[in-house]
Amino acid sequence: MAVGKGDFPSIAQVSGLRLGVAEAGIKYADRKDLVAFEICEGASVAGVFTLNAFCAAPVVVSKKHLAQTQSRMLIINTGNANAGTGKQGMLDAERMCSAMAQVSGLSTEQVLPFSTGVIGESLAIDKIVNAMPALVDSFGDTQWQDVAQGIMTTDTRPKGACREFTYDGETYILAGVSKGAGMIKPNMATMLGFVATDVNVEQSFLQTLLKEITDQSFNRITIDSDTSTNDSCILIATGKAHNEQIVNRESGLAKAFIAELTSIMQELAHAIVRDGEGATKFVEIEVSEAATVEEATKVAFEIGHSPLVKTALFASDPNWGRILAVVGRAGIESLDVERVQILINDVQIVEDGERASSYTEALGQQAMSPEEIKIQIKLGRGDSMDRIWTTDLSQEYVTINAEYRT
Amino acid sequence: MAVGKGDFPSIAQVSGLRLGVAEAGIKYADRKDLVAFEICEGASVAGVFTLNAFCAAPVVVSKKHLAQTQSRMLIINTGNANAGTGKQGMLDAERMCSAMAQVSGLSTEQVLPFSTGVIGESLAIDKIVNAMPALVDSFGDTQWQDVAQGIMTTDTRPKGACREFTYDGETYILAGVSKGAGMIKPNMATMLGFVATDVNVEQSFLQTLLKEITDQSFNRITIDSDTSTNDSCILIATGKAHNEQIVNRESGLAKAFIAELTSIMQELAHAIVRDGEGATKFVEIEVSEAATVEEATKVAFEIGHSPLVKTALFASDPNWGRILAVVGRAGIESLDVERVQILINDVQIVEDGERASSYTEALGQQAMSPEEIKIQIKLGRGDSMDRIWTTDLSQEYVTINAEYRT
Repeated sequence: MAVGKGDFPSIAQVSGLRLGVAEAGIKYADRKDLVAFEICEGASVAGVFTLNAFCAAPVVVSKKHLAQTQSRMLIINTGNANAGTGKQGMLDAERMCSAMAQVSGLSTEQVLPFSTGVIGESLAIDKIVNAMPALVDSFGDTQWQDVAQGIMTTDTRPKGACREFTYDGETYILAGVSKGAGMIKPNMATMLGFVATDVNVEQSFLQTLLKEITDQSFNRITIDSDTSTNDSCILIATGKAHNEQIVNRESGLAKAFIAELTSIMQELAHAIVRDGEGATKFVEIEVSEAATVEEATKVAFEIGHSPLVKTALFASDPNWGRILAVVGRAGIESLDVERVQILINDVQIVEDGERASSYTEALGQQAMSPEEIKIQIKLGRGDSMDRIWTTDLSQEYVTINAEYRT
Repeated sequence: MAVGKGDFPSIAQVSGLRLGVAEAGIKYADRKDLVAFEICEGASVAGVFTLNAFCAAPVVVSKKHLAQTQSRMLIINTGNANAGTGKQGMLDAERMCSAMAQVSGLSTEQVLPFSTGVIGESLAIDKIVNAMPALVDSFGDTQWQDVAQGIMTTDTRPKGACREFTYDGETYILAGVSKGAGMIKPNMATMLGFVATDVNVEQSFLQTLLKEITDQSFNRITIDSDTSTNDSCILIATGKAHNEQIVNRESGLAKAFIAELTSIMQELAHAIVRDGEGATKFVEIEVSEAATVEEATKVAFEIGHSPLVKTALFASDPNWGRILAVVGRAGIESLDVERVQILINDVQIVEDGERASSYTEALGQQAMSPEEIKIQIKLGRGDSMDRIWTTDLSQEYVTINAEYRT
């Protein structure tokens, strides 16, 4: 199941970036399971990674290499996460870089490795190394959709997005792909996200922007509350557009670029939620009138993680008592329940802490029936707000996760 | 679904306590949905209640009445939680007390009301009041099993437990019932638990014991992470046993009583987990070698709430990577992952942060196949430990909660 159609958009190539895919046969035969991004010299590359203490070997290596030098190559395998694999896992992640460096004339530190798939099994590193010549050969012939398909695991469809914008007569492009459908409660980045632009942006400012916008996109989604061991998001600015380098948020171009970057990253994050395991609903939870943003975030995630709220969403049941019970247990200091308002798709359900006088069961049913649901909670405590995006919980989610070995 | 057979035990009457049941027709016809406990004069009564800020009207009234005077009557309805019902809900809870006081010759404050069932609908208070004469008539003819059945909602079976112990030639009794199968992550008490003993225990010390032992029983279970609006647990000591009043934990009798009380409250808490919605496994999660007890509790609950761990348990899949991923995201400051050990039913799965050298898939399968699973996590950080009890997550859980209006 998945929400909406999710057709893959038409995405143009980003100047300064070449894409590659190959079949390594890591978990399944006859599928492209190895992907690469070749990045031009002089590009800025920023990355954010999972905060899970058991982060995977490729995450450790990518963080190290990214800090050492300008990254020139990303290599990503699916079918195996190379997580919980100890010292051998670290050696395998390093070899993924050194072998790829060798076939492409780079140094090991210029290559960042990424893995996604089953946790705790040894990486089939020889298969990956053997497929590298084919991977390099595919540069130039590979489209964004091939890459989006190449990084899928339990995803039911490839996820990509594109933005073109014109500023002062020049046209700029942003393009990206993401993957993920389960073990999704990103903390600093999603399962995997790769975004590229031809805009020239200074390296440290690009890193600042990536962190900031990740917090409004990938770090505000949850499917099942489980933060992955392999979450990574990489942002590449090739600089091929020849604009004056963006170094802060002051210029008109910087403002336009930030708006487009926020938009594309939110679309890629939402695409993960729409393809959430077993999902039949796409749900936005907005908590406003909070005393602090942290309080709003906490309440929003508690609602987004509640199995009772999620099963009610699956049933299209306007069971507002369950939402109210979560608000009550969310640990807000001295909450005045008589100031709490709850709306579902603009229908007022709870008014001053109890059922709204205007509410009828028919109105509630109508509000809950669409695929897209917006839940608004007003806490009546202040001016802060936050929002997150999540899915419902269906039998299909259980079936997928009882059958699939993460 | 439910774990084990769960036959109702034989439970003797507790001297000083009379039980009652009646049919009020609150939600369904032809079922006993009204229960009462009549308590003798001079008994000690202790109570713990939900910390949910949206606590139900009967919780507010019970807390107030318990603080005002010695409680002489508990009255409990099922089918409606009288929660999220605003001012009318408070009036209904008060009337439940005043009407019951009238038919039994007590004052309103001597009656404690309890409600369980659907949230957010008006209580059928007239039906309840009309059934009160029949409820009072049933005193003396009612057994513990009738009471356990009378308080059920989505429970598949009544839950009761009994302890008899002899000290210094005298025999003492403890008896109790509990209910709950969903919206279970008690915070100070379970959905509903009632325990009685003939032991003479001083009122304030009884309250101390109840709080302390609730933290080792009802407050250490979780089915779906959602704290109910109606959680309450009441402990009654009728004092009819004529022992010298227990006022602290010093005497041999006090020690024996505390051990038996802990045992019966844990059995009643475990009975809720075994009857958890859709449950096929009874799971104990023990976290040891933690730096603090709080840290151990946090890790244990994070594992117990992870949908990915719970679906793996349902599938009897030794998917230890998911457990490891939860430990890694549990927010433990500077966790050294290379010191983490994980055992499932005594089979070492993770050794020093990676797959144990002795581990085989066959051993893992064997460890995961029983209905009763013990997961042990050793953090390698200190001497503190804690344990919780939980269930797996099945399609049946989703079906129950997509169909039932909490």
